[in-house]
Amino acid sequence: MLSGLSVIGSERGSEQQEKLFSFSTLRGADLPEAFSVASQAEIDVAIAKARLAFPIYAALPATKRAGFLEAIAAEISAISETLVERAHLESGLPIARLQGECGRTVNQLKLFAAVLNEGSYVEAVIDPALPDRQPLPRADLRKWLIPLGPVAVFAASNFPLAFSTAGGDTASALASGCPVIVKAHQSHLGTNELVAVAIQQAAKKTGMPDGVFSSIVGGGATLGQTLAAHEGIKAVGFTGSYRAGMSIFRKATLERKTPIPVYAEMSSINPVLLLPEKIAADPVALATQVAGSVTLGVGQFCTNPGLLFVIKGTATANFEKALSEALLKAPAGTMLNKTICSAYYNEKEKLASMQGVELLVDNPSAANEYKGSAALMKVNSTQFRANEEFQNEVFGPSTLLVSCESLEDMVDTIATIHGQLTGSVFGTEADFSAFQPAINILAERVGRLIYNAVPTGVEVCYAMVHGGPYPATTDGRSTSVGADAIKRFLRPVCLQDAPAALLPDALKNENPLGIMRKLNGVYTRDVVV
Amino acid sequence: MLSGLSVIGSERGSEQQEKLFSFSTLRGADLPEAFSVASQAEIDVAIAKARLAFPIYAALPATKRAGFLEAIAAEISAISETLVERAHLESGLPIARLQGECGRTVNQLKLFAAVLNEGSYVEAVIDPALPDRQPLPRADLRKWLIPLGPVAVFAASNFPLAFSTAGGDTASALASGCPVIVKAHQSHLGTNELVAVAIQQAAKKTGMPDGVFSSIVGGGATLGQTLAAHEGIKAVGFTGSYRAGMSIFRKATLERKTPIPVYAEMSSINPVLLLPEKIAADPVALATQVAGSVTLGVGQFCTNPGLLFVIKGTATANFEKALSEALLKAPAGTMLNKTICSAYYNEKEKLASMQGVELLVDNPSAANEYKGSAALMKVNSTQFRANEEFQNEVFGPSTLLVSCESLEDMVDTIATIHGQLTGSVFGTEADFSAFQPAINILAERVGRLIYNAVPTGVEVCYAMVHGGPYPATTDGRSTSVGADAIKRFLRPVCLQDAPAALLPDALKNENPLGIMRKLNGVYTRDVVV
Repeated sequence: MLSGLSVIGSERGSEQQEKLFSFSTLRGADLPEAFSVASQAEIDVAIAKARLAFPIYAALPATKRAGFLEAIAAEISAISETLVERAHLESGLPIARLQGECGRTVNQLKLFAAVLNEGSYVEAVIDPALPDRQPLPRADLRKWLIPLGPVAVFAASNFPLAFSTAGGDTASALASGCPVIVKAHQSHLGTNELVAVAIQQAAKKTGMPDGVFSSIVGGGATLGQTLAAHEGIKAVGFTGSYRAGMSIFRKATLERKTPIPVYAEMSSINPVLLLPEKIAADPVALATQVAGSVTLGVGQFCTNPGLLFVIKGTATANFEKALSEALLKAPAGTMLNKTICSAYYNEKEKLASMQGVELLVDNPSAANEYKGSAALMKVNSTQFRANEEFQNEVFGPSTLLVSCESLEDMVDTIATIHGQLTGSVFGTEADFSAFQPAINILAERVGRLIYNAVPTGVEVCYAMVHGGPYPATTDGRSTSVGADAIKRFLRPVCLQDAPAALLPDALKNENPLGIMRKLNGVYTRDVVV
Repeated sequence: MLSGLSVIGSERGSEQQEKLFSFSTLRGADLPEAFSVASQAEIDVAIAKARLAFPIYAALPATKRAGFLEAIAAEISAISETLVERAHLESGLPIARLQGECGRTVNQLKLFAAVLNEGSYVEAVIDPALPDRQPLPRADLRKWLIPLGPVAVFAASNFPLAFSTAGGDTASALASGCPVIVKAHQSHLGTNELVAVAIQQAAKKTGMPDGVFSSIVGGGATLGQTLAAHEGIKAVGFTGSYRAGMSIFRKATLERKTPIPVYAEMSSINPVLLLPEKIAADPVALATQVAGSVTLGVGQFCTNPGLLFVIKGTATANFEKALSEALLKAPAGTMLNKTICSAYYNEKEKLASMQGVELLVDNPSAANEYKGSAALMKVNSTQFRANEEFQNEVFGPSTLLVSCESLEDMVDTIATIHGQLTGSVFGTEADFSAFQPAINILAERVGRLIYNAVPTGVEVCYAMVHGGPYPATTDGRSTSVGADAIKRFLRPVCLQDAPAALLPDALKNENPLGIMRKLNGVYTRDVVV
């Protein structure tokens, strides 16, 4: 069923000598299917096709692109059982979790289809001509957002469906009118192929231009650098490690002729403030909730809470005890791949060996089974502030308690933390009031500020921000989840005195799409008279 | 009247040994006033003040910031005569032009005040909680745009008012809620001081926090690198040369701990397609119009038309003759400063000496009077395509005719041009239809596509895009003119389950600001029930 060949637009790559295999952490062995590493010629063809497809695809009515996204959703739904089974083998993630993720992937595609069908996402702005204005007439000026060009998407390992081949980056880039070239993730090459073929089918069924989508198999770093450096690529969507993300960012920003936008979601340890009155109210319940978030998905979420800020005190000691107990009991879970598993234990050891760190929970390693076991460490705020390495991401079920002396101490400590995807605050109304300065400092550093809930769990909706200041991402002005993820792949263009017949529907006087526009600065769906 | 001291928040810098002087190309000599180069300590104080001002300033109601911008406009209007006189001496630009520019500067400030008073620019998006949703409830999610932090603005020489101290970058950054630190342009240090003091006065009168604005005097490259590298600076607005822009971009992107957005408007030669039927209709009128645009402001506009694409033929020969005559007659005009003047003649010589270039008009140099004299060159499309150096900007009243054989040849040629601020098309309806492929290729490469008008003249309004793909700017997703310039200095943040009392007005259920918001994906000004 799996051919092991890249998807190159409407065609397949050919068999190559160099092969890759997906290692199954569940089986402790490579899976039998071999995947051919695409040749440079195949990569070039994929990009050449994408360039040719771009003007055709970009010029399609948004509703046609919506139909394509809906068709992808349908193709994926149709193979969901096979898909979930393969993803389970390749990622070690539980079946139920993958079923949920499959549903989420389908819903993401449908959300962007809805955005396209509604149509206002092009942010049309019209300032009609003022021929009689003094001292000079005003020209007719109309602007809207147009797509950037072919986008390279770097699939993530931790969501083999929702942040991978047909994940949020692909869905939003395709929605915007940009062809997509996916770098298949080496951890789930079979899952990638199943989804890539589903997209290829959908493209054929809905008459999309050849090259609107490709999925390339190759060695991570090499293929990544090739795509990021290629002049045919006009933007990059990436989810992964800080190191890989920054290497792509450097390549795409300054080591090519034309710098391009890179949306890399890289590294976040998601600080959580646990405020005194809230802790005192029910330390055990709070500890259980936090422990659940730390160990969810074996800690392999970009929103995993890696830093817990508390104020010293009796209640806090009780919380600490309850959290330790909960994490001690947490069973080790199968991790996504070998690299992540060994990196987890390495990073954890490194953190544990740092000056001032107290190891509260250190369940025995289960690395030989590729499982991650939970850990809890503790450091005081002074030590924490003294060494930025406390902020290195430990990707797995581990978290670090930072013990503060006072509000002032907490403010000073939070002022040193790097940019984050999320920040959470657990507190009562009185806590929020007393700790407002700390919350404000936290808010400046995050993309999403959460009250009385854990950071894991990212809703796909209109108001979501899954992004944040560097180093959480390379572009804190963007979100990679939710409807506005489409904005990453668009740029404004202004048409001056364009003949009516040459205006796109979005900018026509009659507003045939019925979209929301800004007319002389005022939001309206009215026609221009 | 001019003290020659930097403006450091609510204070002034102190006198320093190192001084700068503005050279007047009108007088052919340095002006007498000495300006003290700010010390590193003064720069640090300005940035420290900006950091402290930031949370206070950002938290002000938008209407208060609007009041500040209006107060700046009033202060500038009050000193407009003095200002125009000084700017005239420092820039060599005519009084009438500077009066217009002063009005434009005031209007820009008022436009952003209007944007703030209207309030919808924060792009509020609300997805209320769905506690009963199956299988999982949805949290309450609300997002809006918040300012990035202190912004460094690099003033441009060619608009000593509208793109300088209180120009579009400053106005939009202050509107967004970001404190601003201006690097004064060495060409118009007196103009800068007058405006900087006006802003300082306005800040005092409207009770803005100390540090909301500073203007620093210093040597271009050194001060520029210092500001771009400083961790207290969170974004950069720049207008100037490609070399300086890219050096700032490199510094701010990869040579500092935290990369920041750089909005550098750098280099554009603004191609113009002159289509056959339009040329044939009235070659002389068209030539007069184009010549006027080439020589306007002695060619010192970022939208100066530096490339004219034509199809060979009898009418085109007539157009060429008429254009040559018009440019031959164009008087040399005083240029902005010594550097620009000598660079103009150097770049022009370089272009003239390139293989295949025919020099149609080469008025005698007036460099000894710091005046730029018009030039017209010609090259065929094959030669043009063969050498990218034909696309180097010649900043001044010079333009290059590119002679094409056919539509296909024009398409191939335009496909090689770099990103541009503008592209213009002069044509009849029949021309537009016949040359659609060429126009489409041009449209992909520009921020503004203009029909039957010259590129010079940039309207300050809602629909303007003054931006474009690299190397026209470092960020083709933005505009530096018009209402949406504010977006450059904002980023989204999502509040999850925030207590009602802690929501900003823009996100409150009652919509007290009456702004346009997206509620469950639908545009509305309705309250949330």
